[in-house]
Amino acid sequence: MSATDDDRLARVTLGRLAEPGRVALLDAVTDLGAVVVRDRFAEDPELEARIAEIDPVRELKRAARAGLRFVVPGDEEWPVSLDDLAHAAPVQERGGVPLGLWVRGPVRLDSLAGSLAVVGSRSATTYGTDIARDLAADVAEAGRTIVSGAAYGIDQAAHRGAISAGAPTIAVLACGADRVYPRKHADLVEHVAATGAVVSETVPGGAALRVRFLTRNRLIAALTGGTVVVEAAIRSGALNTCNWASRLNRHLMGVPGPVTSATSQGVHQLVRTGAATLVTSGAEVLEVLGASGEHLLERPRGRDRPRDALTERQRLVLDAVPVARGATSASVARIVGLTTDAAHTTLLELEVHGMVEAGEDGWRLAAAAHD
Amino acid sequence: MSATDDDRLARVTLGRLAEPGRVALLDAVTDLGAVVVRDRFAEDPELEARIAEIDPVRELKRAARAGLRFVVPGDEEWPVSLDDLAHAAPVQERGGVPLGLWVRGPVRLDSLAGSLAVVGSRSATTYGTDIARDLAADVAEAGRTIVSGAAYGIDQAAHRGAISAGAPTIAVLACGADRVYPRKHADLVEHVAATGAVVSETVPGGAALRVRFLTRNRLIAALTGGTVVVEAAIRSGALNTCNWASRLNRHLMGVPGPVTSATSQGVHQLVRTGAATLVTSGAEVLEVLGASGEHLLERPRGRDRPRDALTERQRLVLDAVPVARGATSASVARIVGLTTDAAHTTLLELEVHGMVEAGEDGWRLAAAAHD
Repeated sequence: MSATDDDRLARVTLGRLAEPGRVALLDAVTDLGAVVVRDRFAEDPELEARIAEIDPVRELKRAARAGLRFVVPGDEEWPVSLDDLAHAAPVQERGGVPLGLWVRGPVRLDSLAGSLAVVGSRSATTYGTDIARDLAADVAEAGRTIVSGAAYGIDQAAHRGAISAGAPTIAVLACGADRVYPRKHADLVEHVAATGAVVSETVPGGAALRVRFLTRNRLIAALTGGTVVVEAAIRSGALNTCNWASRLNRHLMGVPGPVTSATSQGVHQLVRTGAATLVTSGAEVLEVLGASGEHLLERPRGRDRPRDALTERQRLVLDAVPVARGATSASVARIVGLTTDAAHTTLLELEVHGMVEAGEDGWRLAAAAHD
Repeated sequence: MSATDDDRLARVTLGRLAEPGRVALLDAVTDLGAVVVRDRFAEDPELEARIAEIDPVRELKRAARAGLRFVVPGDEEWPVSLDDLAHAAPVQERGGVPLGLWVRGPVRLDSLAGSLAVVGSRSATTYGTDIARDLAADVAEAGRTIVSGAAYGIDQAAHRGAISAGAPTIAVLACGADRVYPRKHADLVEHVAATGAVVSETVPGGAALRVRFLTRNRLIAALTGGTVVVEAAIRSGALNTCNWASRLNRHLMGVPGPVTSATSQGVHQLVRTGAATLVTSGAEVLEVLGASGEHLLERPRGRDRPRDALTERQRLVLDAVPVARGATSASVARIVGLTTDAAHTTLLELEVHGMVEAGEDGWRLAAAAHD
């Protein structure tokens, strides 16, 4: 299934009209569709004029020339985990499923199941950046993608850790995906774009406004299976991402530090109140994230689940089958790294187990796979 | 109610016959009474001879000359919290309500409700001993007694913290209460005996055997309302006390440290698994211990930021001002959804507050707006 051209163009247009994360608009788009919302906007004389000035086809072409693609709901690459944002209460009118994501880089966004967000203070200590780098490297080495925000401090260390492990990493920016903020991270962001992906909800060319950092944070939390906060003072912006992770039922983890360090106070508070699980290493993060790597599945609790009877390959394939929509054998194969034939055979085995079912739009999870 | 003389003498005798914490014996005493158990022992010819050699009256007199009293169940001074040990499963056959406690010092053991055990590594770091000392001083100042084991490292720091607050403190020893272990802590233990209490289940003159440390630990956990562990490596003996605290349903708390520090690993593990609550200060310990909310803390709010003085509209506008480049009043207005005039007025107000500044390319954030 793919978004219609008109839907995609309507989303480009709406993105030019409104700030990212305006929940009223985004909820309307989720409920009614982008085309309907754009057409209703066009009934307002003032907005009609502004809409007429926008040429979404040219925008998409210009973006493509800059190496950007616009991934929208319904696209095969759309990360379905973002759909959870439709059900999370907004914060100060910000929230909602983004109209689309502007993406620059080879990594596909539908490959981020079980990925890890690493966030923390921009004014981190050496202790914090050392831990963030090592932890990100260990988790990346285990095959999970590191997502962060390309900021100074913990963000930078996390991206570098993943890069040092030879793994792709994802930077979600507050400015347009064709821009760089902070400027000093130009080399880092270019490296991420060349090997992983640079992602933004903000229109190409858009600046790094303060309000956009807060809306950006919800994407970091929603794209990933869990968030680990390495250092954060009591009022650090990183705690905003943690808050979103909690509200989206993602795993939230915190790395402790000396109680004498102000940059660990926010983390300690999260652990103390039970909001975050204390972790001290990449191995512990992996343990919390769980074996399945699919955050939409509940964490394993009992021993008697149908999953337990599956082979390793069957589980891998099962974990790559979307919950909310169908997927082709080829798309599952791509996610898991199998040939299409091998994936197809395994999907047929899973069908015998009653774990997946074939529908009009491809393979989807059967009820038995949900527990 | 007071123990009968015969009961007290039977307990002295049984204490000479058996190691502290032998759960089979102690459970029998709890169920049948010390006199019955001693008399049954005396039916065994071999034990009869040994019992005949023991003169409990002389033992009590000799102990009294050394400044020791023998506190037993039924005495007014008996700390009833120890009775919980009758219901806690033993560990390696050790457990049970002690026959009695040998006590040296002015503090009465029935005054320890709401007291705090501070335990941790003997080979603590300076970080750990600093925290233990400050935390113990703060909790002692709030009127709660600090209980520890007079060992090197965290124990010593905890006692010293309480003493520095001018408060009595309790040392529970593995050797007899008339002895000192380790020897280098003779001055410390004498100070504790003069102002607080030195306590032991081991008979007077008894040596600090390894097995007695483990049985001693259950008393530290049982005597107190909660245990805080400041530094403990993965196999630290302090974790044994923590284990008893958990099994006795006492509050268990842990002070985190750098994840790179081996002496914090045991603490982190307890917090990670949910066995212990993370605490970073005496105030947080008091909040955990406090039953009726008397010590409920205000959440740390961080320092007051200039933002806090702004109106809602001023904050909205401030959030729309770019970080890295200038913006016109009209562009800010569009983002916020205000008229250009209203946005411009608000920007001028923010300039007065020193939050934004006008440059060649428009409005940008001033230094004060960066947190």
